[in-house]
Amino acid sequence: MSEILRDQFQKIIAIQPEEFDYILGHFTYKKFKKHQFLVQDGQHVTFDYFLLSGCVKSYYSDENGKMHILLFALKDWWITDYEAYYYQKNAIVNIDCLEDTEVLCLSNDNREKLCREFHQIEHFFRKKTNRRNVALQNRILSLLSSSAKQRYEKFLLEYPSLVQKLPKHILASYLGVSRETLSRLYSTK
Amino acid sequence: MSEILRDQFQKIIAIQPEEFDYILGHFTYKKFKKHQFLVQDGQHVTFDYFLLSGCVKSYYSDENGKMHILLFALKDWWITDYEAYYYQKNAIVNIDCLEDTEVLCLSNDNREKLCREFHQIEHFFRKKTNRRNVALQNRILSLLSSSAKQRYEKFLLEYPSLVQKLPKHILASYLGVSRETLSRLYSTK
Repeated sequence: MSEILRDQFQKIIAIQPEEFDYILGHFTYKKFKKHQFLVQDGQHVTFDYFLLSGCVKSYYSDENGKMHILLFALKDWWITDYEAYYYQKNAIVNIDCLEDTEVLCLSNDNREKLCREFHQIEHFFRKKTNRRNVALQNRILSLLSSSAKQRYEKFLLEYPSLVQKLPKHILASYLGVSRETLSRLYSTK
Repeated sequence: MSEILRDQFQKIIAIQPEEFDYILGHFTYKKFKKHQFLVQDGQHVTFDYFLLSGCVKSYYSDENGKMHILLFALKDWWITDYEAYYYQKNAIVNIDCLEDTEVLCLSNDNREKLCREFHQIEHFFRKKTNRRNVALQNRILSLLSSSAKQRYEKFLLEYPSLVQKLPKHILASYLGVSRETLSRLYSTK
């Protein structure tokens, strides 16, 4: 399944087969069951996760135990708690699996090593990080948007393949609306 | 004032004086008055802005004309509408000056050129973009936090030098609280 990663590299940079094999050697493969955690609030974060299959959500639990969803990730997306990952802090968010999920794991040390060794890899990760910036800015705009309809439309733009797949109460939570409001939004599409 | 930029580069990468002069040649200097715009909603975004002095806010105006503040930027921060800047779209947000502000402007073409020419510059911008990711994730967490007190405390962590400087109604808007609630938060510090 590593071709999913190779394809993503090749969309951004030129990479030789032997280079890709070397790079892939810095990743480890892991399989998680539905409901298992990639990242847990308060714990050390070793890896950035590249999804080979499945679907995960990242969320924040407030002091009353209420879950606030930040983002989802699907096949060929990267996800972790980046503050914890980059700066060796404990995680503030949780990331768990909405279905069985396979990932390639990259430690921050290996990421920095690859970036030092290959200018092209540094370029690749800069571009991916730019893209994540945009996703995060859009999430902020979605949270600030006044209407549930706008938030729903932003969601459709950002995660077109996710809308049918996601449990309705999770999607409602992400959008910050009741399930009844969500049903109304569905029916007007 | 270009030493502010040089100092920021030198915190992350080793850079020779003649290299820095070459890099600086890819920036242009601009001065904005209080209330002027760096970026306007609906317009083309040419530059990423590195602040030499002053203070700006980025905000989104919803369909009812209500202003929602995303982020602030101060001396030695970078700011623009990154989706518009990276992907040649029109801006969704506005960025205007809370006081007279001097900036160095970098076009996306020049950013990409410098990143191609110097592996170190690519490294620098990757690291800065990582940092921005964390700021954006923290902004999301601030918006999702249930209590105004938590939002205020996150703000103090992120912008320690800004709290005394900012008009109270702007800070209240950023925190999503009334001015009365903000006064209460101040008085308990």
